[in-house]
Amino acid sequence: MRSVTSLGELRAALARLPEGDAEAEAAVIARQARLTKPQGSLGRLEELTAWLGRWQRRAIPRLDSVHVLVFAGNHGVVAQGVSGYPASVTAQMVANFERGGAAINQLCKTVHAALRVIPLELDAPTIDFTTGPAMCEAQFIDSLTIGFDAAPPDADLVCLGEMGIGNTTAAAALAASLFGGGGARWAGRGTGVDDAGLTRKRDVIDAGLERHKDRLADPLQAAMALGGRELAAILGATLSARQHGIPVLLDGFASTAAAAPLAVLRADALDHVRIAHCSAEAGHRALLAELGARPILDLDMRLGEASGAALAVAVLRAALACHHGMATFEEAGVDERA
Amino acid sequence: MRSVTSLGELRAALARLPEGDAEAEAAVIARQARLTKPQGSLGRLEELTAWLGRWQRRAIPRLDSVHVLVFAGNHGVVAQGVSGYPASVTAQMVANFERGGAAINQLCKTVHAALRVIPLELDAPTIDFTTGPAMCEAQFIDSLTIGFDAAPPDADLVCLGEMGIGNTTAAAALAASLFGGGGARWAGRGTGVDDAGLTRKRDVIDAGLERHKDRLADPLQAAMALGGRELAAILGATLSARQHGIPVLLDGFASTAAAAPLAVLRADALDHVRIAHCSAEAGHRALLAELGARPILDLDMRLGEASGAALAVAVLRAALACHHGMATFEEAGVDERA
Repeated sequence: MRSVTSLGELRAALARLPEGDAEAEAAVIARQARLTKPQGSLGRLEELTAWLGRWQRRAIPRLDSVHVLVFAGNHGVVAQGVSGYPASVTAQMVANFERGGAAINQLCKTVHAALRVIPLELDAPTIDFTTGPAMCEAQFIDSLTIGFDAAPPDADLVCLGEMGIGNTTAAAALAASLFGGGGARWAGRGTGVDDAGLTRKRDVIDAGLERHKDRLADPLQAAMALGGRELAAILGATLSARQHGIPVLLDGFASTAAAAPLAVLRADALDHVRIAHCSAEAGHRALLAELGARPILDLDMRLGEASGAALAVAVLRAALACHHGMATFEEAGVDERA
Repeated sequence: MRSVTSLGELRAALARLPEGDAEAEAAVIARQARLTKPQGSLGRLEELTAWLGRWQRRAIPRLDSVHVLVFAGNHGVVAQGVSGYPASVTAQMVANFERGGAAINQLCKTVHAALRVIPLELDAPTIDFTTGPAMCEAQFIDSLTIGFDAAPPDADLVCLGEMGIGNTTAAAALAASLFGGGGARWAGRGTGVDDAGLTRKRDVIDAGLERHKDRLADPLQAAMALGGRELAAILGATLSARQHGIPVLLDGFASTAAAAPLAVLRADALDHVRIAHCSAEAGHRALLAELGARPILDLDMRLGEASGAALAVAVLRAALACHHGMATFEEAGVDERA
């Protein structure tokens, strides 16, 4: 599958998204009805198995090849004092990922997922969006293409996450442009800014919305003006996964905001996606409500780096273990309903 | 640790419950503050690690020995038409557990937990509680003792669950006796009864509450009159785990109701316990609110058989993997807050 090389090609790709496999999904559901449990009693484990079957196009879905992709980028808007950490921490954390010392390394080992970290020009932060568009079209498309090409075409599941000091501000501004409400609705404490930092963050978001108001009606222009390289890469990877028939777990607030333009452009564009975890970051619950999405986990995490997505792989593995391994009523000699 | 042999001994044991180890917990929290993540950003993973440390009395908690105990019992109240399945299914499902065909078998394999299934006189159901007390004191204490002795004293974690056709009715009646509100508040659809079945269930619970009203002020008398053998065993196992310094994951509605008398008798009696999963069974959310407990997972499951507890082990393993494996800021050369 060829990546997109312009906004026009991106819009064209969105117009011809492949559908899921309703027959595979129906086969999953039919098997679940014969397993030794009251109908529907495994709840979301059943729903998630059917979802995997639909998008993998397999009556017996599998998770042999699970890939966690963490995209990293730097943000000019950090100059506005919107983060408690200096921008240098993005590269330091990428090095930590590469040495195996971060939370995501431990989580990937725990759930048997392959981790790939993809830094995106960390030495060239995006433009501070209060002074100009964060990216030009070429930069946006370059990052999107890196994401598009990063998802292995034969993966059974892709988990998408990010690392980028300042990117909850970019994500909040992008969410505000897509769904309305301004900085007061979407700014959160990110890595832990104090009250003054939170106020600055709100003002910075509102300044960005005001500055770029003439182009924000288009979700892709909004992603370019307010977003970031790692967010563009997540958008590209989400689209690529759909084209390759790979279900996607999105991590938290920034990752969800990154993919949200697709849903605004086409209501069913994220049907192959589940949100792994409801972040403690303030705006995520509102964003999930706008997308009509219910997260798999809700554990007060707010780390990013695909940590929530990796953790949710454990739930999917459990779901498939039940689906594959349970006896049917007939096999087990268990009476069905009276 | 000797089991209790009478209600008096049970009350005496409750009066001298061992406390957790605040120093071990503080050591966990101190380490978490040095790991390469924003403070508190692993949310409940951090809280659960501290809880494991406190009750295991270990600065570095571990999950080398995780035991899932499923107690099974039969209920005379099934004669009132409160379940969609015949009572014979309890023994059939126990056989299914023993052959490895049930959901809990697959979940235990997935999370590397040892499964033990303990049927409690399945051929001698409790008395229908609308006609008399479900158990006499000797039966109650016998079941409680089996539970008390079932938890391996050297376990790092015990998961408690149940199987028993009709036991959501017993659990609902017990919850009603402890927290008020009657059948309308506590009855749910269990394995999936229809509207008429749900109405019967409510009436049956109210009839039980009325019949035994003179003894329900005492939570242990309530557990005896309205509960069941597998519920008494869960109460015993919960108490035993506290005495041995073993953290406990309780499964769903019936398991939570089973242990709830301990919390009514002594407010801190379940401090070594976490509720693994919020059941889709109607009464569970109300029961969690009464206990001030927040479940780890909320996945619309309503299967029992310790399925939610086993699944939550995956979250605990992930929490410990982060705690054990992450680099500190110093080790990783990552800048702390600006």
